[in-house]
Amino acid sequence: MKTLVLTLDLIGTFVFALSGATAGARRRLDIFGVLVLSFVAANSGGIVRDVLIGATPPAAISDWRYLAVSMLAGVAIFFWYPVIQRMHNAVLWFDAAGLALFCVAGAQKALVFGLEPIMAALLGMLTGIGGGVARDVLLSNVPAVFRSDIYAVAALAGASVVVIGDALQLPTTPTALAGAALCFGLRLAAIRYGWHLPTARTPEVDENDGAGNQER
Amino acid sequence: MKTLVLTLDLIGTFVFALSGATAGARRRLDIFGVLVLSFVAANSGGIVRDVLIGATPPAAISDWRYLAVSMLAGVAIFFWYPVIQRMHNAVLWFDAAGLALFCVAGAQKALVFGLEPIMAALLGMLTGIGGGVARDVLLSNVPAVFRSDIYAVAALAGASVVVIGDALQLPTTPTALAGAALCFGLRLAAIRYGWHLPTARTPEVDENDGAGNQER
Amino acid sequence: MKTLVLTLDLIGTFVFALSGATAGARRRLDIFGVLVLSFVAANSGGIVRDVLIGATPPAAISDWRYLAVSMLAGVAIFFWYPVIQRMHNAVLWFDAAGLALFCVAGAQKALVFGLEPIMAALLGMLTGIGGGVARDVLLSNVPAVFRSDIYAVAALAGASVVVIGDALQLPTTPTALAGAALCFGLRLAAIRYGWHLPTARTPEVDENDGAGNQER
Repeated sequence: MKTLVLTLDLIGTFVFALSGATAGARRRLDIFGVLVLSFVAANSGGIVRDVLIGATPPAAISDWRYLAVSMLAGVAIFFWYPVIQRMHNAVLWFDAAGLALFCVAGAQKALVFGLEPIMAALLGMLTGIGGGVARDVLLSNVPAVFRSDIYAVAALAGASVVVIGDALQLPTTPTALAGAALCFGLRLAAIRYGWHLPTARTPEVDENDGAGNQER
Repeated sequence: MKTLVLTLDLIGTFVFALSGATAGARRRLDIFGVLVLSFVAANSGGIVRDVLIGATPPAAISDWRYLAVSMLAGVAIFFWYPVIQRMHNAVLWFDAAGLALFCVAGAQKALVFGLEPIMAALLGMLTGIGGGVARDVLLSNVPAVFRSDIYAVAALAGASVVVIGDALQLPTTPTALAGAALCFGLRLAAIRYGWHLPTARTPEVDENDGAGNQER
Repeated sequence: MKTLVLTLDLIGTFVFALSGATAGARRRLDIFGVLVLSFVAANSGGIVRDVLIGATPPAAISDWRYLAVSMLAGVAIFFWYPVIQRMHNAVLWFDAAGLALFCVAGAQKALVFGLEPIMAALLGMLTGIGGGVARDVLLSNVPAVFRSDIYAVAALAGASVVVIGDALQLPTTPTALAGAALCFGLRLAAIRYGWHLPTARTPEVDENDGAGNQER
């Protein structure tokens, strides 16, 4: 069982690292920059979670396998970018799987460290989306998760299942599987049906004006 | 007394969350992005302070009320953005009050954790301004506090009063009130009279060139 | 010996603070923004390292000398920007020296806190480059280290010498000197001969398109 969890965790790491490396390669970073973005996209969520709950050094720093898997993904993108781009759909599926694994694992770890249920669910979500936010900030973009389709909500739903199961004292493994399945299913449905969250009604300000005002 | 402090702290959280949600709504983020910016703008300063002084998990993570108040502000902006925009002056006043409360509370907490006086004052300032910096970085803007009117200086002044009072072993409550009043007064005066800090003389480089050179 | 190390460490801090202040002044930040960038560029790498390994409060927060030296550099740039710009070559040399000192000191500290060899080398590198990354993120630029010449690699090489020497139980001081010398030499050679790392072959996407797609 423990080997299964680690395997799934490393698959999630690999897939998120692919997304970071892809974003870096498209912005013409050098090989070092691509590798850094691989590591950041795959591990920032977990690192921030571990720092916040006081579990230092974070697992991604103290266990070399997270680094190795991240570098592997970075190198793969660096040399075979066109091939992997063609597998776009597969990457989206893997990404949904990674999100599902990370949100569940993150919520469980936060519960183990004694956080309140609501905060544990949010830290599970943070574990899932944190890497993508850090990737986008490093590339000087507004994080895609703040205005894309249902992504963070899927992670929050999956993490919430874990937290509710814990509060009801249900056995851990089935609730973890249920949470991961819910997140995965929501994410795939959002991709297939183009589900979006609503945006606020701020009719008179277009995006460039907004940025311009901020910069003043 | 403790209830008063918590009430003031939560008011500060609410007001800073309003600023984050407003910035997010103007950049057309979805409801999730707006809520994240609410939480980030209201709590990043305190979270970074707590991580730096080793007080993990940070109060904003372990106490659900900070989250609840932040979400409330985000939802309010999301649905009543035009109404709150019309109350622009009130928001500026509340923001000054939030800054005053946060810088004083931040400096006190740093002193309790045994930091040196100068560093405690700076961490007080960081508590006040950190949320706005994180908000601007997430939206891919240069933090407004780095080139706006007297803002960080007001927070530093308020925090310094707390630290000096502590060094002179004055009673805590009056010095906290004096620090908050100084910060609040400086901030309002800066708004009313348009006080600015000087910028360096770098005559030949305009802003776009600067950015362009960096990007090369 | 200890005085020598501290002196070198503070020289490194000063030089990195100069780079932060210069970047801030060119973007027309006010004096406060320039000072913040001085401190951030000089101390972020060490602060992040200390938070990750659980050494809180970080040295840059608990020892006032890092702050004092950073502020000194910021004030110097603010008032004598043209003079220091003319000393451009000297600044590049000092920057290489700062990088060499930071990567070695960072790796040693990580080893002392019990990290694995590979992670200690990476944290040494992070200590060297972290400040520049934070500086660029705050100014809303893609970090220069992700697409410039040999910089991070030099830091990683220097840190690796320390880690290998530790694994072989060689005496600390000579390996530290060898690591610093290797980093310094690599960095100067990269400047002189224009060494670059390769970038990935992503022929069809130019930089603006990349950014545009991300923003969608």
